[in-house]
Parts: sequence; structure tokens; C-alpha cells
Amino acid sequence: MRRKCLDDQDCPVACTMQVVGEWWSILIVRDCLRGLTRFDQFQKNLAISPNMLARRLQTLVDAGLLERRQYRQHPPRYEYLLTERGRDFRVVIAAMYDWGLRNFSDPVQQLRQGSANDYLQERMQQQIQQNNEET
Amino acid sequence: MRRKCLDDQDCPVACTMQVVGEWWSILIVRDCLRGLTRFDQFQKNLAISPNMLARRLQTLVDAGLLERRQYRQHPPRYEYLLTERGRDFRVVIAAMYDWGLRNFSDPVQQLRQGSANDYLQERMQQQIQQNNEET
Repeated sequence: MRRKCLDDQDCPVACTMQVVGEWWSILIVRDCLRGLTRFDQFQKNLAISPNMLARRLQTLVDAGLLERRQYRQHPPRYEYLLTERGRDFRVVIAAMYDWGLRNFSDPVQQLRQGSANDYLQERMQQQIQQNNEET
Repeated sequence: MRRKCLDDQDCPVACTMQVVGEWWSILIVRDCLRGLTRFDQFQKNLAISPNMLARRLQTLVDAGLLERRQYRQHPPRYEYLLTERGRDFRVVIAAMYDWGLRNFSDPVQQLRQGSANDYLQERMQQQIQQNNEET
């Protein structure tokens, strides 16, 4: 996913797009912010092919947004956790959420969905609860 | 650029990514926010192929972020202006700018570049001045 920055090598927007400028990458970070950590959770939620998901996760690890951590030894299992840089990306996701809500929802839906913070917070709590029930 | 929303049809982040979820589209909106309006200006600044640029501009017009307006009759010439929805996207670009600056610049560069608002404002003023000199 690394691309040439063209004549904007010092433009932070271009740098951001170089790192996460792909549809799936941004949706993976969104799902991490909502509490998902495991390969099969991302795959189920995004209906993404395993190869594509593995590549996007690796890109996000390389870019320092995610950290890959082993959570089981036999058989070996890994989870993906947001780093500080990844958690900091929340402001971008929140801005996208708010813009999408303002521009592509009817007023009733806007009321139902509420703010980006509510959305991320609520989904994260649901996910944590679900994870606790599974384990 | 329209893609299937998968199981997140009501997620505003996924909707946002459907509309502008492509590297070039976001950089075109960024350039519009900095005052660029014309095909050749975008092409020169982004070093993008004419076909790709034409497709991305059309996508942004279809999505209601840009308006195509004829500014000369003989020969016919068009410019692309941000709509209210497009101008509203400034908050997303600003969040990307700030995140990129925080995470991929050294402190000296951060001081030199300043805030997203300064960046967009300064470039826009430079561009308006340049346009005035050209006409």
C-alpha cells in the first residue's frame, strides 16, 4: 500500500492516505476501535477474503497502528491490538462518521445513531460483553 | 467507486468510505479546499493520469461533493467547485492532516507546518493570488 507521495511528500494528508488510504484498512481500524481483536471477528464482520485481510492487517502492523500479540500457545493464536497511534486514529474515524451521518442519513436515522463517540463506545461495550461470554 | 456496504449498511463510516474511499478522491478534495478548481491544476499537482482524474472528478460530482461549472464558452472550459457537502468534508481532511502530522513528522517539521487550518488557509490564499495573476 505504500505509494509515491508525488510532489506532496511533506503533506500530512498524503502521508495519512499512504498509510491507511484503503477502504478495508480504515474499516479494520474502525472495528478495532469498537473492540474487535481477532482475525475471524474481522473476517466475519467485514466479509473480507482471508488473503486480503491478512495483507491489510500486516500493513497496519507495519505502519504502527496495530500490534500483533499471541494470546494462546497451543494451538498458536494471535490477536491484533491498537497501539497508541492506532487509538489516536479515532479522531479521523469520528470525523468520517459525523460527516457520513450529516450527509447521507435522514434526520430520524441521525437521531437514532447519535454521535460518533456514542457509536464507538456502544459497539465496543457490546463486543467486550460478547467476548466475555465466549470465553 | 460504489461498493457493497456488507453488513454495515447503516454505518456512516462505511458510507463515507463508499463515497470518497479512494486515495485520489481524498487528495482531490484536499486540493479543492486549498483553492484549486481546474482540471489541469489537479493534474499538475497530483501527477495523475487524465483518465483517472476524469473518473474521480465524476465520482465526486455524482456524490454531491463537487459541482461542475462552465466558466468559458469558446472554447468550452469547466471548473470544479466544492458544494456545501464538499466544504463540510474539510473536518475529515483536517483530522487526517493533524493525525499525519502528529504521527509521521518530527517536532521541527510539526512547528513549521502548523495546524490544519493554517495549512488549508495558506495554500488557498496562495492559489487565489496565483489565479488572479494568471487572468
